[in-house]
Amino acid sequence: MKGLWLENQQLQLRTDIPVPEPQLGEALVRVLRAGICNTDLELKRGYYPYTGILGHEFVGVVEQGPENLINQRVVGEINAACGHCRFCLRGQPTHCENRTVLGIVNRHGAFADYLCLPVKNLHPVPDNVSTDVATFTEPLAAALEIQRQVVVCPDDCVLVVGDGKLGQLVAQTLALTNCQLLVVGRHPEKLANLAGRGIKTGLVDAVTDKAFDISVDCTGNAEGFAIARRALRPRGTLVMKSTYAGNLSLDASSLVVDEITLIGSRCGPFSAALELLAAEKVDVKPLIHAHYPLIEGLTAFAEAQRRGVLKVLLDMSKV
Amino acid sequence: MKGLWLENQQLQLRTDIPVPEPQLGEALVRVLRAGICNTDLELKRGYYPYTGILGHEFVGVVEQGPENLINQRVVGEINAACGHCRFCLRGQPTHCENRTVLGIVNRHGAFADYLCLPVKNLHPVPDNVSTDVATFTEPLAAALEIQRQVVVCPDDCVLVVGDGKLGQLVAQTLALTNCQLLVVGRHPEKLANLAGRGIKTGLVDAVTDKAFDISVDCTGNAEGFAIARRALRPRGTLVMKSTYAGNLSLDASSLVVDEITLIGSRCGPFSAALELLAAEKVDVKPLIHAHYPLIEGLTAFAEAQRRGVLKVLLDMSKV
Ligand SMILES: [Zn+2]
Ligand SMILES: [Zn+2]
Ligand SMILES: [Zn+2]
Ligand SMILES: [Zn+2]
Repeated sequence: MKGLWLENQQLQLRTDIPVPEPQLGEALVRVLRAGICNTDLELKRGYYPYTGILGHEFVGVVEQGPENLINQRVVGEINAACGHCRFCLRGQPTHCENRTVLGIVNRHGAFADYLCLPVKNLHPVPDNVSTDVATFTEPLAAALEIQRQVVVCPDDCVLVVGDGKLGQLVAQTLALTNCQLLVVGRHPEKLANLAGRGIKTGLVDAVTDKAFDISVDCTGNAEGFAIARRALRPRGTLVMKSTYAGNLSLDASSLVVDEITLIGSRCGPFSAALELLAAEKVDVKPLIHAHYPLIEGLTAFAEAQRRGVLKVLLDMSKV
Repeated sequence: MKGLWLENQQLQLRTDIPVPEPQLGEALVRVLRAGICNTDLELKRGYYPYTGILGHEFVGVVEQGPENLINQRVVGEINAACGHCRFCLRGQPTHCENRTVLGIVNRHGAFADYLCLPVKNLHPVPDNVSTDVATFTEPLAAALEIQRQVVVCPDDCVLVVGDGKLGQLVAQTLALTNCQLLVVGRHPEKLANLAGRGIKTGLVDAVTDKAFDISVDCTGNAEGFAIARRALRPRGTLVMKSTYAGNLSLDASSLVVDEITLIGSRCGPFSAALELLAAEKVDVKPLIHAHYPLIEGLTAFAEAQRRGVLKVLLDMSKV
């Protein structure tokens, strides 16, 4: 089969990859569509070591697996857990200490014709959710993780820093809480998309110091973090909702004096994300920048890396 | 009056300081005893700018103030709040944006014959609590702040890093929750004090990685922070219970991947601290290293700075 293979920071289109064989409890999924995410770009830049097929945001059709899923469109949670370690036993499979992660840690990913995942990771896609839209389930679930970690009340002043792919999803999910939301970024055309949905937006220099109860850094860089930090009132909470390259230098004493809470936030609930998509409570279509066939995967990556570009999708039905 | 005066990182004993005049709503307090804390040592090292009389841990007697407090022994909350800013109005006077802080920010401190504080900051000391013991009210309240910020359950594995003055108080207050507590440090003789109270202790290299639900860094240095960080299981909470000199370099991505929470923790509830002291639920006496008269304040500071020394008290009744 074909697949986008990463090795030593070189991404190549390979056509000689054997179709994977599902292990016990796994399903074989034919990939229909897959999204390129910042984590993929960072893996390619070598921020984390990984060799194999990239990709973790996908929609596919089950070809081998339990009867009730065969020929169903599915999305899949990316952490394959062992089921018996102390974190699995605590009900935290996304933190399983033996986990593999689709296209990220020791498990071939979704930028290919086929992938394998444990059956229990798969969620059928509701009929009224298009394949393009369902491809956003994974990052939308990650956005929803914030609300599992932090109670967001309508009175709360909440700042989202970053108007990129993740920032847009985070903003749309936080808007559903009716909190006092402001989204700041550097791209007026991206912010306009949120403003069109009635969300208050601004450029990054418009942020008032010490004015927010909660801030979410969706930039993954030191500058975005600093904006999110400065914006917080004492006892405020900063959610780190992105991967960061390298170390971050913190004024630790100011965190103590202001009794700030920092929370790292990663994977979230797929069912809740699918429900929001099915109910059309969030609109991901404006986030789609372009479609490419898998064989043009390298071009798709180059495009996804360009500044200001939102979601680039690989469409396996295109040739 | 006499006082220990800090100016340009020089501490001097002055005898020419006028007795302060209480402002509206303030009381004049004759200081009986005062404790030297790491914050004092750091102010002297110039980590924060401050000019004036140092000292914020004290017991005194009210000489001018409301009838019911005259001649009473009192301790005092160190943040003098404005009462009308947005943080005061939210019920967070310790975060008042116009606050002065006794011996730390724009308010002369307790290493002197007299000090002034707002009457509402003062708490009478129960008769059965000795003056030496009551001097620990402020740092004990700071230790209790942790439990106002983080729910600590009997099942939780909790690590305290640091066996110094603050670590010892934090350990004793956490032990009252019946959590699974381990305290690590570098001084066997200090750890022995806690072990004698039935608290599990160890040297810093004895900490198992990813084994704790909650860790508390009481060291204020990068090494202690790193131990507290490594010890946390995914979704664990690290409480930063100390002042830090300079910046801290963090592996931000690992905080995100493990969904770690960091919380800065500062001043806490005085009434709860006094209740614990009155009920003898914590034992601060073994923490007292020495008493010095105020006129030997510079010697007392030199002693407090020596590695391994616990609490040095200034006793204003000594000459
Ligand atoms: Zn992703
Ligand atoms: Zn596991
Ligand atoms: Zn102190
Ligand atoms: Zn105030």
